Amino acid sequence: MKITVLSGGVGGARFTRGLLALVGTEHQVTVIANTGDDMWLHGVRVCPDLDTLMYTLGGAVHEEQGWGRRGETRRVSDELAGYDLGWDWFTLGDLDLATHLARTELLRDGLPLSQVTARLAARWRPGVTLLPMTDDEVETHVLLDDGREIHFEEWWVRHRATLPARGFVQTNIATATPAPGVLSALSDADVVVVPPSNPVVSVGTILAIPGVRDALTSTDAPVVGVSPVVGGAPVRGMADACLTAIGVETTALAVAQHYGRRADGGILDAWLVDEVDAPAAAVLRGVGWASRAVPALMTDVPTAARIAADALSLVDRRP
Amino acid sequence: MKITVLSGGVGGARFTRGLLALVGTEHQVTVIANTGDDMWLHGVRVCPDLDTLMYTLGGAVHEEQGWGRRGETRRVSDELAGYDLGWDWFTLGDLDLATHLARTELLRDGLPLSQVTARLAARWRPGVTLLPMTDDEVETHVLLDDGREIHFEEWWVRHRATLPARGFVQTNIATATPAPGVLSALSDADVVVVPPSNPVVSVGTILAIPGVRDALTSTDAPVVGVSPVVGGAPVRGMADACLTAIGVETTALAVAQHYGRRADGGILDAWLVDEVDAPAAAVLRGVGWASRAVPALMTDVPTAARIAADALSLVDRRP
Repeated sequence: MKITVLSGGVGGARFTRGLLALVGTEHQVTVIANTGDDMWLHGVRVCPDLDTLMYTLGGAVHEEQGWGRRGETRRVSDELAGYDLGWDWFTLGDLDLATHLARTELLRDGLPLSQVTARLAARWRPGVTLLPMTDDEVETHVLLDDGREIHFEEWWVRHRATLPARGFVQTNIATATPAPGVLSALSDADVVVVPPSNPVVSVGTILAIPGVRDALTSTDAPVVGVSPVVGGAPVRGMADACLTAIGVETTALAVAQHYGRRADGGILDAWLVDEVDAPAAAVLRGVGWASRAVPALMTDVPTAARIAADALSLVDRRP
Repeated sequence: MKITVLSGGVGGARFTRGLLALVGTEHQVTVIANTGDDMWLHGVRVCPDLDTLMYTLGGAVHEEQGWGRRGETRRVSDELAGYDLGWDWFTLGDLDLATHLARTELLRDGLPLSQVTARLAARWRPGVTLLPMTDDEVETHVLLDDGREIHFEEWWVRHRATLPARGFVQTNIATATPAPGVLSALSDADVVVVPPSNPVVSVGTILAIPGVRDALTSTDAPVVGVSPVVGGAPVRGMADACLTAIGVETTALAVAQHYGRRADGGILDAWLVDEVDAPAAAVLRGVGWASRAVPALMTDVPTAARIAADALSLVDRRP
């Protein structure tokens, strides 16, 4: 079975780890990762979601934190602060920095990000085909209420998503193209999964790459999503601030409606919600969705595997 | 008094540190540094001679090693080796890497190397005006006997200068221009010093920048050199391999003749040699040079200061 996942960072990585535990190696899993959070920092290319996926699936992630490396240190960052260049709110861990340096070297050698990612992933053996959504430099910027436009990471990490925002834009999005393998991973899939990633700045950014939404609406594979919102709050992170910025309520129902049902021009066929959101599942079923409420908090790998099984069974895809 | 020094790495840095101890802060010292050893490594810009000067004059150098940072560690380098990208023979220390990252960020922001160097040096307060020879990317390559052309650092660090070479070339040298301040530092100087740096790949590379040699031959300031060769061997490093490659004997006399006397179209007026090379000084005096033999091994800062005093007095410039 070919399974394709559209993923942001921590939530998508933990879901995919559960999915792999469920389906094993005889199935072919492709992860299309958001790269809108990427940035050039101190001259090196940082790709937060790709790295979170690589470290999580490769067994090297800082488990409690959800991103970055286990046993990380900050010797370079501490020293760099001595030069007083700014961006001191974004710390580059020493181990993580090695990844950024390797990536930057390969990019500067002229390799596209997709090939660079394959080279880096070869070390971590994530058990999936890991694809950036695009080889182009697309970066998510936040449009602030005060008129400024800042990089998403600055809003997210530095300001903890507290600066009032009225929307998001992706730089270079009009001319961006999906990375090699992205569209075929959608058209050839047996099932496509939208994991509990940020619907706005993770999945939403992937969907904004020209061609991706069409590939999703036209694929023969069913598309099932897992709600990142449980009981009116994001499972993790500050997705509520992103949803609010684009005028979507932070509820499992509103996010499903934001994605939309494929039969109605959206991208999903099915929506898995947490048991506390059973009423939302009922509403969705009433208007033709496949939907079900299950315990959907990914507390550990076996739980994530069970949630993945629930998602697949919702569209009759059992490994 | 305005003193300008044409410097490579360790030898020039230690000499300049002695010079500063001698002349104090009421004199104005400008160091024009070789940047031919610079390279892009893992996507960051490494400038070995500028950094050795900055760390040595800023009191942060690894004293025994002569270059790099005191208390250096290799956490990033060790981790980077896991990606197996090659160049593992050139280790980036963690503290040193912070400098490269800061430099790379500023370069990528569009600042020329001379301004970047001023920004970095502001942290280290080297007590001199530190100038790269050029803002252009000029890199010294080694022409090997087997026909290959490799970066100087690969020849020097990886192969310990043991691969037979038949010469050196500087990339982009024809179109390179001296960095802002370089030519005026030579024309306006009260004295110019060529410290015991590598005559071929350090001082020779600076001299190859169009305009620098002319500025030296035409300045009103006397130009005094200190021999990097003592008793037929380089004081430090493998300068003999460089001299051999260009057909110059590794003797204090041959190096002086290679630089040449300004009255004969060369760049020097005076040449300070070690006491073991007293015969060379006598030969040079016989053909019109100012030359003197003194204990010229820079064993510590006071000794380097005394050697600097001897060099200045050879051209009647006493602080």
